[in-house]
Amino acid sequence: MTSSDLYPVSRLAAVQEATAKGGLDALLLTPGPDLRYVSGYDAKPLERLTCLVVPAAGEPYMLVPRLELPAAEASPASRLGLEFVAWDETDDPYAIAAARLGLPAKVGLADRMWAMSSLRFREVLPGAEQVLAGSVLRELRMRKSPAEVAALREAGEAIDAVHRQVPGLLRAGRTEREVARDIAEAILAAGHATVDFVIVASGPNGASPHHDVSDRVIQAGEPVVVDIGGQLHNGYCSDSTRVYSVGEPPAGFAAYYEVLRQAQEAACAAVRPGVTCESVDAAARDLIAAAGHGEHFVHRTGHGIGIETHEEPYIVAGNREPLEPGHAFSVEPGIYLPGRHGARIEDIVVCTETGGERLNNTTRELVVV
Amino acid sequence: MTSSDLYPVSRLAAVQEATAKGGLDALLLTPGPDLRYVSGYDAKPLERLTCLVVPAAGEPYMLVPRLELPAAEASPASRLGLEFVAWDETDDPYAIAAARLGLPAKVGLADRMWAMSSLRFREVLPGAEQVLAGSVLRELRMRKSPAEVAALREAGEAIDAVHRQVPGLLRAGRTEREVARDIAEAILAAGHATVDFVIVASGPNGASPHHDVSDRVIQAGEPVVVDIGGQLHNGYCSDSTRVYSVGEPPAGFAAYYEVLRQAQEAACAAVRPGVTCESVDAAARDLIAAAGHGEHFVHRTGHGIGIETHEEPYIVAGNREPLEPGHAFSVEPGIYLPGRHGARIEDIVVCTETGGERLNNTTRELVVV
Repeated sequence: MTSSDLYPVSRLAAVQEATAKGGLDALLLTPGPDLRYVSGYDAKPLERLTCLVVPAAGEPYMLVPRLELPAAEASPASRLGLEFVAWDETDDPYAIAAARLGLPAKVGLADRMWAMSSLRFREVLPGAEQVLAGSVLRELRMRKSPAEVAALREAGEAIDAVHRQVPGLLRAGRTEREVARDIAEAILAAGHATVDFVIVASGPNGASPHHDVSDRVIQAGEPVVVDIGGQLHNGYCSDSTRVYSVGEPPAGFAAYYEVLRQAQEAACAAVRPGVTCESVDAAARDLIAAAGHGEHFVHRTGHGIGIETHEEPYIVAGNREPLEPGHAFSVEPGIYLPGRHGARIEDIVVCTETGGERLNNTTRELVVV
Repeated sequence: MTSSDLYPVSRLAAVQEATAKGGLDALLLTPGPDLRYVSGYDAKPLERLTCLVVPAAGEPYMLVPRLELPAAEASPASRLGLEFVAWDETDDPYAIAAARLGLPAKVGLADRMWAMSSLRFREVLPGAEQVLAGSVLRELRMRKSPAEVAALREAGEAIDAVHRQVPGLLRAGRTEREVARDIAEAILAAGHATVDFVIVASGPNGASPHHDVSDRVIQAGEPVVVDIGGQLHNGYCSDSTRVYSVGEPPAGFAAYYEVLRQAQEAACAAVRPGVTCESVDAAARDLIAAAGHGEHFVHRTGHGIGIETHEEPYIVAGNREPLEPGHAFSVEPGIYLPGRHGARIEDIVVCTETGGERLNNTTRELVVV
């Protein structure tokens, strides 16, 4: 896949149309996923302002510190034919933007715009109501194109290749940190540009869903939760969780693991267009609750994924948004027994016209190593 | 150094006092350098809100997603004896914060707070003027404690150790990217937790100050600008630039390199308490301009450094802030001849009672390899 497939030139016009339709006068996109989505430019977040201005009517342009001009010109944003407005070290780029924008009534800020920028934009555009650019971009970003789905599939295959190496890395006597270091190397070797997270949670640490790693020595007879992901060079992210057991698991573990496996299966099977996000959550939660573990499933079932590891749609109670073809998200229920151990199974699933396609395909059975 | 030295428990009280003195009712610190500075907690930036609330009067507390509670409790923030307010997946943490805050008139937002949070805080606290937490924290953050200076010195030694390896990595026929990959490994091996940037700019690429790396093959007879840095596990950052020449440099290079060397020397020598930031900039710029290269020095002379690579104070024309003991910043003039080649020499300098101490100490002569 080329960046022309993933970040098509036509997207800018679609965004401009959505901006007008959303009643916004302009989007102000500083470095981060919103800017990358619209332009393909993976700009470094810096104190010097880079900002793609997308007016509802008129020509988009990008404010760029002169030092960053070569990087901007070398980026996929150069395909868009927009003007790069370079500013010098003693210029005020916010004043330059304000002079060009005139008197907008409503502007959309990149969801991750830093306060050091949003408050300056408020100063120079005192009449402009600030809302999130996400109000315009979320529909577009959620509905992945075939090229985006292909990129997520590639990310899924890359992280699956890492999970297949985990049994060779896990053994009693090694620390979580040692195993995590090897996994991080494997994530890069599998084609990721960055390692975003490596959770290796052994024994009682497995009962803390966001445990990272520690110097704890893995013991025989312990389940180990391994939740890993990274970002490909093209920007798309991977995220998958599997549970391994170093030797035979402790008494009682297999029973709730099987409940979890069926719950994850049920949630994946519930995915199809028109189904709400919260009902996918309920599909997993109801089975877990019915088995008496409701209080042990302490988090939402999943999160959207794309050029961010966590983005919309969130698979959580209260989210009545219906799924559409192209929505991509994790399905990752868990059961956690505080002080003892825990388990989580996670696949990335994309909603298709007819159901859900899982982008992770290593075995979901407990792997005894 | 322990985190108790770098992030002392006493800091929270000092910050609270500064908050009151600055006329703010509370600071709202989401993950990023401001939160880390105040609490020692290097929290992951997530869509789920983590926020240290520091009221001008009353007890500070930290809103934490329940999933992140173990991480927050395991962090240095646990030493502060503050309340962790854990919120659940279907709670609205902004509403919880608003209910506790009452009716503040003015709040300070972490400089890097995402718009997705700052706009939500605006909604739930409609009567509160939002300003940057930096307005309160900047004085404190700029004035490095002896422990912080020691951490920056350690970072300087670590990156100096990497520069000493560069002559062994640079040779004609290798690409910039190959060299950069080796340097990145060396940065980690030297004790950094992350590689923040690796610029390897050969020949004409050296004329672009923020050139990153490319697949360009380094040729004999070319100067190569190498600007590298990372972040230690304790949070403090390194940043140093040196110029190497692969074989004898091209005609004309040595003359302007010597101008640059003297200009960098002059700017370092200008550092002492009471001197303004802009006069340090001028010390370098005047010499370069006098040699006829004023138009080839296209950026400010430097930036502050600490737990961010770029922070205040900025060494730039127009900044009349006087230096104080403990201020730490880069001194990095450059001369760039578009299309041909360029050079930059960069040290981190800390202002002491009597002058400037350089934290980078590899040779500043052109290194011919």
